[in-house]
Amino acid sequence: MATLSRRIADLQGSAVRAMLDAAQQGGMISFAGGLPAPDSFDDLNLGQPPRDLLQYGPTEGEPALRERISQELAGIGLDCPPSRVLVLSGSQQGIDLVAKLCVDAATPVAVEDPSYLAALQVFRFFGAKLQTLSPDAPGAGWSRAARPALAYITPTFQNPTGRCWTRPQREALAETCDRNDVILFEDDPYRDLAYDPCDRTPVCSLIRTAPWIYQGSFSKTVAPGLRLGFLAASEQLFAHLAHLKQAADLHTNRLSQWSVLQYLNDAARPDRLEQLVARYRRRRDLFAAALERHLGGLADWDIPPGGLFFWATLRGGLSAEALLQAAIPRKVLFTPGGHFNVDHQPASAALRLNFSHADEASADKGLATLGELIRAERKAA
Amino acid sequence: MATLSRRIADLQGSAVRAMLDAAQQGGMISFAGGLPAPDSFDDLNLGQPPRDLLQYGPTEGEPALRERISQELAGIGLDCPPSRVLVLSGSQQGIDLVAKLCVDAATPVAVEDPSYLAALQVFRFFGAKLQTLSPDAPGAGWSRAARPALAYITPTFQNPTGRCWTRPQREALAETCDRNDVILFEDDPYRDLAYDPCDRTPVCSLIRTAPWIYQGSFSKTVAPGLRLGFLAASEQLFAHLAHLKQAADLHTNRLSQWSVLQYLNDAARPDRLEQLVARYRRRRDLFAAALERHLGGLADWDIPPGGLFFWATLRGGLSAEALLQAAIPRKVLFTPGGHFNVDHQPASAALRLNFSHADEASADKGLATLGELIRAERKAA
Repeated sequence: MATLSRRIADLQGSAVRAMLDAAQQGGMISFAGGLPAPDSFDDLNLGQPPRDLLQYGPTEGEPALRERISQELAGIGLDCPPSRVLVLSGSQQGIDLVAKLCVDAATPVAVEDPSYLAALQVFRFFGAKLQTLSPDAPGAGWSRAARPALAYITPTFQNPTGRCWTRPQREALAETCDRNDVILFEDDPYRDLAYDPCDRTPVCSLIRTAPWIYQGSFSKTVAPGLRLGFLAASEQLFAHLAHLKQAADLHTNRLSQWSVLQYLNDAARPDRLEQLVARYRRRRDLFAAALERHLGGLADWDIPPGGLFFWATLRGGLSAEALLQAAIPRKVLFTPGGHFNVDHQPASAALRLNFSHADEASADKGLATLGELIRAERKAA
Repeated sequence: MATLSRRIADLQGSAVRAMLDAAQQGGMISFAGGLPAPDSFDDLNLGQPPRDLLQYGPTEGEPALRERISQELAGIGLDCPPSRVLVLSGSQQGIDLVAKLCVDAATPVAVEDPSYLAALQVFRFFGAKLQTLSPDAPGAGWSRAARPALAYITPTFQNPTGRCWTRPQREALAETCDRNDVILFEDDPYRDLAYDPCDRTPVCSLIRTAPWIYQGSFSKTVAPGLRLGFLAASEQLFAHLAHLKQAADLHTNRLSQWSVLQYLNDAARPDRLEQLVARYRRRRDLFAAALERHLGGLADWDIPPGGLFFWATLRGGLSAEALLQAAIPRKVLFTPGGHFNVDHQPASAALRLNFSHADEASADKGLATLGELIRAERKAA
């Protein structure tokens, strides 16, 4: 066999994608993946997009869209001119670009534990040495001599835990990045899905001197199928990221950029977003009630103040992976939490449960099945 | 300043993109870039795409599109089931994925010289040691002990030279890849733009045992703004490439996939393609006549049998880079050939001239300007 790159040896399909594939099978109740509710999509009546969109476009993105995103960022307290906004083919691409920018073999990268698994996968792929970053003591142990090159965080309604960092935690991280000159990479795809009051100040807006990258997504509030995200970056990093984008796919498809710009400029947008949040809040509350009904006493969880996930921990040392193996033939899917750990923990008792995709009746049925399986497992143990 | 990855030191914006950006300025006559004629695009009346396209989709691409591409490949003699077709966000992405698959620091990669510069850039970025592959003696000097990991070729109407490999050249390359177990990566975006009879047999279809990747694009015959390409790969490589795609952007945007599938299934497609080819053939012929008129005796070139480019070499040791610097204030752009060389040659006398984008009158005017500037340069020399 021909020789492949060293990094391929470590490459496996992400558990999330395998779940999404299994979810395509008929009759599955899926708490895996992070899929928006299918009935949450507006019709996209594209009509006749301008013909010149069919030509090659600028690497950085459509000027009108970059301008609009810059305004959005100003609205959340992040000051960034359109010239430092880069349109992405979904925010997964931003992770790839930032890894290319920062990560060589053995480069130290600080991440929350657990953290978004497809980010961990990309950092590992480029050779990162992952270290843990705790919201409670960000930067503990860092110095100019011993610091990560990059700190990657999802401080607002994190995937998988749903956690939202407090204002003091955000300030402490910004301060330690400044002090130690660590690049901050803030991934913020869930910020609009806020069900309870939380401080959502972008940590990047609190940075004074350190280099930073902030990224957002339209997958959760418009439509994931469009594959449209963006990043904003500090002066020192932007040109490099644009060059990396160019080498990755020249530019993002212009039809999606045009569609999202229509959406952002639509006068009905605030109302629609409010309705979407109300719908997901209700779904979260129903899911919490069903969890209590079926898993009460069997597992522990917090009510997430935003985002798309519950993070639950089985009592009695049961393994979530074993539960999944029992659940699949019963047509219920979820993602075992161990995949999200810095060191993959197959025996982890944690499970990530998405509540946005399954309707109320299915969620109840699926959680009832999980409760039944857990009880059987506990009896057998 | 924070530490960036080692590979960033070598990264520069590609000359092609800088050209495309300059081409956006008003009044430029651009022979740079590889832009299709703006009036060659059909209207894309998308109407109301199916709503379920807005959800996340499969990493590998839409099943119906993969099936259709597999049929297209069978039609050109390349046998590949739909399960080994991967839809790409433009074929630049395929280059990124293949580099990730095959290239570590100092991995030997064989390429034509000159070759597509954005491919050279990506291979270098991942640390490749580039070596030259000649169509006249492919595999000369290779052995099982001393072979490249990868051979990258654009055998049909190459960018930048327009060259089309003969059948014996194709057979010889396939044979030597088989014999030495070298991965063949065939990039074939121009194959439909054939103006003169040529053997266009995919080299990958002649491979018997070596691993291979074949990629194609819809940018030249449908619309580049959709950013849609595909690759097909041998059994040994496909799953790795799908995993790499997943880590890069989860999947390609579904609206573009849907649009291209409509195009491929349109009964009028063969007629439209024939008209497009007739239009470009005429443009090539007019361009050749204008070249003769204005650069006759000042440069040498062949008439390209297909594709989008003339490759001309200035006589008398003039530098194409110097000519470009004189041409820009006169509002004429082209790409100096030295950028396409394995070892960048700033003093190269070669220039790449795109003939698909500028209309007849502009092309004549732009070439007249170049002729005038070359004459002035020769007098001054």
